[in-house]
Amino acid sequence: MTQFTDACALVRPIDSAGAGAAADARSDRLTKPRGSLGRLETLGTQLAAIARTCPPPVPEHVAVCVFAGDHGVLAQGVSPWPREVTAQMVANFRAGGAAVTVLARQTGAEVVVVDVGVATPIPEPGPQAVSAPGPRHSSDAIAPAPQMLLRRNVRRGTADLATGPAMTREEAYAALDVGAGVAADALAAGAQMLVTGEMGIGNTTPAAALIAALTGAPADDVTGRGTGIDDAMLSHKTEVVRAAVARLATGAGSVADPVTVLAEVGGLEIAALAGLIVGGAAAGVPVLLDGVIAASAALVACALVPDVRGYLIAGHLSAEPGATIALRHLGLEPLLDLGMRLGEGSGATLAIPLVQAAARILREMATFEDADVTEV
Amino acid sequence: MTQFTDACALVRPIDSAGAGAAADARSDRLTKPRGSLGRLETLGTQLAAIARTCPPPVPEHVAVCVFAGDHGVLAQGVSPWPREVTAQMVANFRAGGAAVTVLARQTGAEVVVVDVGVATPIPEPGPQAVSAPGPRHSSDAIAPAPQMLLRRNVRRGTADLATGPAMTREEAYAALDVGAGVAADALAAGAQMLVTGEMGIGNTTPAAALIAALTGAPADDVTGRGTGIDDAMLSHKTEVVRAAVARLATGAGSVADPVTVLAEVGGLEIAALAGLIVGGAAAGVPVLLDGVIAASAALVACALVPDVRGYLIAGHLSAEPGATIALRHLGLEPLLDLGMRLGEGSGATLAIPLVQAAARILREMATFEDADVTEV
Repeated sequence: MTQFTDACALVRPIDSAGAGAAADARSDRLTKPRGSLGRLETLGTQLAAIARTCPPPVPEHVAVCVFAGDHGVLAQGVSPWPREVTAQMVANFRAGGAAVTVLARQTGAEVVVVDVGVATPIPEPGPQAVSAPGPRHSSDAIAPAPQMLLRRNVRRGTADLATGPAMTREEAYAALDVGAGVAADALAAGAQMLVTGEMGIGNTTPAAALIAALTGAPADDVTGRGTGIDDAMLSHKTEVVRAAVARLATGAGSVADPVTVLAEVGGLEIAALAGLIVGGAAAGVPVLLDGVIAASAALVACALVPDVRGYLIAGHLSAEPGATIALRHLGLEPLLDLGMRLGEGSGATLAIPLVQAAARILREMATFEDADVTEV
Repeated sequence: MTQFTDACALVRPIDSAGAGAAADARSDRLTKPRGSLGRLETLGTQLAAIARTCPPPVPEHVAVCVFAGDHGVLAQGVSPWPREVTAQMVANFRAGGAAVTVLARQTGAEVVVVDVGVATPIPEPGPQAVSAPGPRHSSDAIAPAPQMLLRRNVRRGTADLATGPAMTREEAYAALDVGAGVAADALAAGAQMLVTGEMGIGNTTPAAALIAALTGAPADDVTGRGTGIDDAMLSHKTEVVRAAVARLATGAGSVADPVTVLAEVGGLEIAALAGLIVGGAAAGVPVLLDGVIAASAALVACALVPDVRGYLIAGHLSAEPGATIALRHLGLEPLLDLGMRLGEGSGATLAIPLVQAAARILREMATFEDADVTEV
């Protein structure tokens, strides 16, 4: 048994009938017209059902877990960015200069950086990399020490999924286990919510392939421009996705088991994210999803353990077309839609205060009785 | 001269060509694909243009200014809620038990409560009204003292706009002046951004009338269900809006001047919001708009001083139909769309961290050079 298979066995359905219904009832007693807080109310209900108590705790301590991995499919020219940028950005995360680290700092979330499949050496970050670091509301902070990097490298990048399996099933399981282990460690350290983050030059290609394989959507519908490619490159990328997914067909419209799909067309950081997601659900905490890469990992996690679905919150809608298809398949409505397509966990990190607010409304708003407000 | 007319004279166009362009250029140097932060990037550009410097300051100190007023048009049965709820909710704001106060507490924003036109006595809040009050990240806080209420009552509620002018032009100017004064005081106390909030049972009716009058949209398109009314009530409400707007027609398709429109079909808290908006723009700070009431006030402010437009940020899209029409007329794209229709400033307050994030990205993210990341 591994931490991942242990976690799979521990996931139970969220408590919609008990704590979820209690949250609905409480929401209707708060000093506002019924339903007038919209999505914040349904989110509060989900948080109560996840926590199995009403009102739910406010997830103050949040871990943004950023998994990094490289992709052999980059050899197909699916991205203009060189492979080394994955390792360079890991150093940038450690130094606090990347978007996700800036956004996490604002909201008080911790960033956990994990090398699960980086191919090239990760530069040591210099102390000068952050232009205005430090704690929130402080203007005289000094530069922080570089953040810890968890070295959990399963393999130095995947093989080219255009020409064969991206990794072995054993490697996929090892990466799933890395994710479940990071979840367990973050939760043991006090995290009350997990946020998915990732870095991997070329990783919108495996994400598109996973989404196509696990939702049945055609390659044309799920393949996008990622960080920015031209029409010719997009056409080739789509063909790569189509061909890779075709290898998975087992006849009669059925597909291979989820771990085989993950090994054949996935990525190491995506596998780790799937492990993180299952680990969060197993521990009974909300898992806040970032963009298209996270959505592909969530499809894997839910294919393996369907009850994981109740623990998922879509932080934002990525501009990548596959994200819309994956979220619809999962029945998730994103909180933010700001045209973001950076990844890293940036969109989900921006959504953290919305999740906290939904819990806080249920905890801190006065009822009509409390406040002596006339109800109609 | 009043504070409001002084403020009108001080509004200048935002610095798009200078600081705005510099923000665009800086954004392209940050360690991310160009444009990949979507709306956060355009918002950062606007913040720089408002502040006339790049990178712009992070608006850490934010004042949510909640103006309360009553409406004579309630006699027409346009809302199921009794007039006394306006005063009761003012007490709830003071005690910290209302949605906007819960959301403001989470984000560290100050709430300023202003009686500009409440008709009935405001109850003194009891110390028990907040169930889980106190500073952020604290679980052992004691109940706070009731918050200060600014008593700036211009008139104890408007007259019924269905039967005549809601108020005189002098009263409208007095309420505009209250708003400009509150803006000046909040800014003098250190606020770096203003957020619009309001409370007024029945105030979606004057808001709809203002939006119809100032955009030319038909009453059917701008009138909504507010806090929840049935078809018959909606039909009557729409007729009230249509008839009130018809009184303003001066022939040949032209309409009356904005202050006359405001006096004829507006509200005291809406007038005060228009004054606040102009006051914020005059001082060169961003003004974050809440829902449909704020949008109607923004239409008044921009009709009076068109350069105000550049200082406005739409915090969220209200579920009220008039909000969409007003924001389109103003050319504003809302940050959040969560199906909220509570008002109070709740949607805009929820959007405060997004605005802060946009500025922080420009200030704290590393450039490609800083972080030694390969650029393509």
